[in-house]
Amino acid sequence: MNTIEAVPNISDGSRADILNAAAVAVREVPGLSLLDISSDPSHNRTVLTLVGPGPALLQGLLALYDVAVEAIDLRQHRGEHPRIGAVDVVPFVPLDETSMGDCIKLAETLGQAVATRYNIPVFLYGDAARRDDRRALEHVRRGQFESLEERMSLADGSPDYGPASPHPTAGASAIGARQPLIAFNVNLDTEDLDVARQIARAVRERDGGLPHVKALGIRLEHLGLVQVSMNLTDHTRTPLYRVFARVEREAARHGVAVVESEVVGLMPADALVTTAAHTLRLRRFTADQMFEMRLAQLNHRDPSRPGGVT
Amino acid sequence: MNTIEAVPNISDGSRADILNAAAVAVREVPGLSLLDISSDPSHNRTVLTLVGPGPALLQGLLALYDVAVEAIDLRQHRGEHPRIGAVDVVPFVPLDETSMGDCIKLAETLGQAVATRYNIPVFLYGDAARRDDRRALEHVRRGQFESLEERMSLADGSPDYGPASPHPTAGASAIGARQPLIAFNVNLDTEDLDVARQIARAVRERDGGLPHVKALGIRLEHLGLVQVSMNLTDHTRTPLYRVFARVEREAARHGVAVVESEVVGLMPADALVTTAAHTLRLRRFTADQMFEMRLAQLNHRDPSRPGGVT
Repeated sequence: MNTIEAVPNISDGSRADILNAAAVAVREVPGLSLLDISSDPSHNRTVLTLVGPGPALLQGLLALYDVAVEAIDLRQHRGEHPRIGAVDVVPFVPLDETSMGDCIKLAETLGQAVATRYNIPVFLYGDAARRDDRRALEHVRRGQFESLEERMSLADGSPDYGPASPHPTAGASAIGARQPLIAFNVNLDTEDLDVARQIARAVRERDGGLPHVKALGIRLEHLGLVQVSMNLTDHTRTPLYRVFARVEREAARHGVAVVESEVVGLMPADALVTTAAHTLRLRRFTADQMFEMRLAQLNHRDPSRPGGVT
Repeated sequence: MNTIEAVPNISDGSRADILNAAAVAVREVPGLSLLDISSDPSHNRTVLTLVGPGPALLQGLLALYDVAVEAIDLRQHRGEHPRIGAVDVVPFVPLDETSMGDCIKLAETLGQAVATRYNIPVFLYGDAARRDDRRALEHVRRGQFESLEERMSLADGSPDYGPASPHPTAGASAIGARQPLIAFNVNLDTEDLDVARQIARAVRERDGGLPHVKALGIRLEHLGLVQVSMNLTDHTRTPLYRVFARVEREAARHGVAVVESEVVGLMPADALVTTAAHTLRLRRFTADQMFEMRLAQLNHRDPSRPGGVT
């Protein structure tokens, strides 16, 4: 079985009926597993982690579109996180046994289906992008839903699939393929959004900061704090601990303390091992030296053989 | 199925034929899983991690005794780690679905069998101890194999099972029950064993150091270094990062650098999460937010249901 991961983000982070309906819709698909569902009310956004073979993923994602397109109206949507659509972004991520090529094909197939079925314009991004200026999601999403109609009317504004202007309520979707990423946020003990924005600029790659880091300053109304909201697109090269230390140092320059950090959704076990290994100067430790991992892998690999051995 | 863990330690850390025979012997037992086997040549010791239901564990452990008693002669044994027997120590550890009482019963059953079958004296230790002075393994092992005959001849020297004097080549065994522990070693950039011993005294509970920490100074001939070799008997109360920081600080007082640390065998996933959470000030992160763990658990929990959901 060629298992692939998909991490759709939908533009609602608090309405339980919609989020339950979304979970039920994907759970009903045979062969598809919903590994995680994480919502944030300030971001007003929910991230689902799905794994399964390509056909099951496509079926589940279309079921998710059914729910989100029906329930979410971008004209009414308020949230701190950038977004252009009801189903804002759908990345496919290769797992051990799949290639990036498989993920790109799935992105194309889903993109065509979404355009046809819902009349929603689709932009291919990441490794599935057909134009260099659509590789980076932040470029595709620039100006957000509110500027979408205007940007699509420009010479280079045509989507890869679907109509030449946004869906009135569901906007557009960015569908693509990428390596795994870590959604890592650091909350700061201030309400000054400008501090978070300055720190975001200092740490992100595009402004000369750390490689493989994207960052935004965001206000968390419900906590009375601001946040540096980041994507780490290659944690093996720019590890979590280095990103955290950099944010903490930049915050200190503003006289601001770090309250806490959070990982949204799931992250690769290796990222945790790398962090602990850094702190403990730990050598030769691998993720499968975690007791529970070894035990789960044993059952996973060879459930039919009770005397199985790693 | 009542799954229990056993972590037998045998007194050989380098002879491949013996270690292979030991692994083969336990692997042949239906229902028993060998999760890990870790050897250290300086310690001259091998730690096996087994999981399975009680009867399979007993069968596998007796098969391990068959190999070790035949192959290991304590009169010839040299190694830095304290030991009293060919199968030096066998702790049973409760997992989620088992109680400490189950583990104590297994220790008693194995102890009787070992005494009867091999004529080896057995000391019950840890939570299976019948005398307070045998709860701590370091007390049971005091003076090691070389002092065993003399210590057993004292008024309070009788074993819990078996003969009144050591087996001539296989010594004695400590068999018991305990909570999970982490075997955590820190290597120091010096050949001065006295430094490692002083640091061990400074960090271990019994000399006024950190709670739930046992520590010894050990020479690692093959690396030209010394080591603070520790057992963390409750990492939820005394976390790894605190132990490491304390060793590092004590070493600095001697002008000695820490080279690296290592975890022998397996450790609970939570210990890694706690360490990373400390470094990153990470909140609300649990071990099952590791992608691979979630995936493996999904397959483990419900292999028959492809649409299963966490």
